[in-house]
Amino acid sequence: MGCLMARQNSKINHLTHGTVAAVAWEAGKPLVIEEVEVAPPQRMEVRMKILFTSLCHTDVFFWDAKGQNPLFPRIFGHEAGGGLEEPVMPKRNGFADHDLFPYRIVESVGEGVTELAPGDHVLPVFTGECKECVHCKSEVSNMCELLRINTDRGVMIHDGKSRFSINGKPINHFVGTSTFSEYTVVHVGCVVKINPLAPLDKVCILSCGISTGFGATVNVAKPTKGSTVAIFGLGAVGLAAAEGARVSGASRIIGVDLHPDKIQLAKQFGVTEFVNPKDYTKPVQEVIIEMTQGGVDRSIECTGHTDCMISAFECVHDGWGVAVLVGVPSNDAVFKTHPMNFLNERTLKGTFFGNYKPRSDIPALVEKYMNKELELEKFITHQVPFSEINKAFDYMLKGESIRCIIRMEH
Amino acid sequence: MGCLMARQNSKINHLTHGTVAAVAWEAGKPLVIEEVEVAPPQRMEVRMKILFTSLCHTDVFFWDAKGQNPLFPRIFGHEAGGGLEEPVMPKRNGFADHDLFPYRIVESVGEGVTELAPGDHVLPVFTGECKECVHCKSEVSNMCELLRINTDRGVMIHDGKSRFSINGKPINHFVGTSTFSEYTVVHVGCVVKINPLAPLDKVCILSCGISTGFGATVNVAKPTKGSTVAIFGLGAVGLAAAEGARVSGASRIIGVDLHPDKIQLAKQFGVTEFVNPKDYTKPVQEVIIEMTQGGVDRSIECTGHTDCMISAFECVHDGWGVAVLVGVPSNDAVFKTHPMNFLNERTLKGTFFGNYKPRSDIPALVEKYMNKELELEKFITHQVPFSEINKAFDYMLKGESIRCIIRMEH
Repeated sequence: MGCLMARQNSKINHLTHGTVAAVAWEAGKPLVIEEVEVAPPQRMEVRMKILFTSLCHTDVFFWDAKGQNPLFPRIFGHEAGGGLEEPVMPKRNGFADHDLFPYRIVESVGEGVTELAPGDHVLPVFTGECKECVHCKSEVSNMCELLRINTDRGVMIHDGKSRFSINGKPINHFVGTSTFSEYTVVHVGCVVKINPLAPLDKVCILSCGISTGFGATVNVAKPTKGSTVAIFGLGAVGLAAAEGARVSGASRIIGVDLHPDKIQLAKQFGVTEFVNPKDYTKPVQEVIIEMTQGGVDRSIECTGHTDCMISAFECVHDGWGVAVLVGVPSNDAVFKTHPMNFLNERTLKGTFFGNYKPRSDIPALVEKYMNKELELEKFITHQVPFSEINKAFDYMLKGESIRCIIRMEH
Repeated sequence: MGCLMARQNSKINHLTHGTVAAVAWEAGKPLVIEEVEVAPPQRMEVRMKILFTSLCHTDVFFWDAKGQNPLFPRIFGHEAGGGLEEPVMPKRNGFADHDLFPYRIVESVGEGVTELAPGDHVLPVFTGECKECVHCKSEVSNMCELLRINTDRGVMIHDGKSRFSINGKPINHFVGTSTFSEYTVVHVGCVVKINPLAPLDKVCILSCGISTGFGATVNVAKPTKGSTVAIFGLGAVGLAAAEGARVSGASRIIGVDLHPDKIQLAKQFGVTEFVNPKDYTKPVQEVIIEMTQGGVDRSIECTGHTDCMISAFECVHDGWGVAVLVGVPSNDAVFKTHPMNFLNERTLKGTFFGNYKPRSDIPALVEKYMNKELELEKFITHQVPFSEINKAFDYMLKGESIRCIIRMEH
């Protein structure tokens, strides 16, 4: 296993070279480790070396392709950490894991890239920040017009072509990141330069799920100290939302999930009470309203199921309750409620990537981890070498993992 | 016309006395001016003299009783100004109208009332502020648990009885105010003490519709200077919402209404563009999104029709748009939208009485009028004496009036 041509030409940038990638040839079938050609980065792109990637439910969702447009063959993956230069050994700072996976970061930058240079440690992100559109210039939006997530696109925006191929046949990208590959090409606007001392096998999970859940709470729901918060869905995003509520000083954090085996785990993330909708005949929003004498102050929906969205909205207190939608719905979903639920002074908002502007805000979130204000270790339940990437899918499909880190084998 | 027993016993409090009231005997039929007995105020109630009342669409909605629970006979009316004491002539301050209708304010307070005294000038409000419940203690809610609007209740909360009767037969109250009567009984928590120099024939409209619309914009939608705002429905509430947008410095205020004759009028309230959904085959939200290159920054829905609510939500810009629901829906209404409209960082909120806490916040709104920061005169299109109250209904049903002030004839 290894990157064949890169081994021979590690100093040669701007040439197509080989990589090893996990290719999804068809929906729902195990990924196949393949030798793949990676074209050089074009204008405003970088070719980066991935050191660690993790598996997020969104990868599985589009790999499974139920209720979504199938696009195969494709290289999935969007939570990752890597870099752009020759070996950069981080200084010793107590993160012993570094020693296990010394950084060999070798890659190149395309024309027009000025903010990144070989040597930088980076996180690729599935959405971007061009810094020039109305959204990037807005103080609140992070939905960059140019680089906003497009799950139906399998090519780079510069020329509408893929940078991956096998024997000349293109392989589709996924959300502009395709991190299930030792080397990948990413638009510079989707690359976050971070503190080079940060351990990439930990902070790689800030590329998507953890930032999404944590930001949904701290940036959007904004519970005040002592408030009550309900979290729908205790996967990685939901647990990160709970972590946000814990950090915010919420006094009650009610976890809602169909799997009672999540209770113990959820307690580590600050969840104080657990509700399994299967245990009740009445709608879960009524259960929560009774538990809290009128409803929670904030709720965060992390499942993407329409009925959970409705429950999450209807369980917030009238007068001040705010519900935040995070989970991605299917194409044919319809949210329904009686409008009086709004008129009684409830608010419903949605968020995308926790309202973080990737390049502007994620470096500070990495620092929050470095300063021990945010715990990441507890999200990481499994680690596998890249050659065993399909195990990561198994762990997630069985509900055993929160995050499984996949270690690339350069 | 006049208050029979009160004329003889104007100094005698705490006795049942007569009043003249406009009674709705059945749904949709003209009101009948009747002599009605008014019982004395009970614990935490005041009996107030109404000097001016105006007709709001909510009165007409429940009088018409289509899609709402009918409750008759009933005394409607909830936008009004009056007081609690003997003649108090306001000082001359340039409001010449005062001279036309010198205040003769004669009434009484019940047990436990300490914050109001005979002599006060007041506005009754259809919702209240007990100052003790979780809502009143919350910094954001104005939905007082004790005194929140209840359109199905026709009695006082103290003893579950009406204070109005004709020959011993009780007549129902309406939203705790029943201002279509020369004298009425109101819970002290629904009575706002205001500056006695304020002209009651103008500020009476702050009892409901104008505060509701103005507050929806300035307290809830909060458009920033230079932003774009869409207003759905250009009745009094919608025009007050437009006035709020104008005062906030919005650069474009798009009025949406089915009646093109509202254009000229709406311009006085800051509306810069007019959209009639009947002029288009595509949904009005698409029209607005095209007009504004992506959607408005804020929208305010003042019709109560579900399809308008959906349009108002879907026409706000992704990334930062906020839609505010104000109009009251029918009992069987269902709000529907694709959840992605939320996930793309749009917010939907509802508001009630413009999020104003009546006793705490409305006195300052009266001052805003006194300081000429808020114009009220342009809302007042008609005036009638109490004996011609049914004309006010005609003006509203024909869409001719914004506000018609009804002058009581003590």
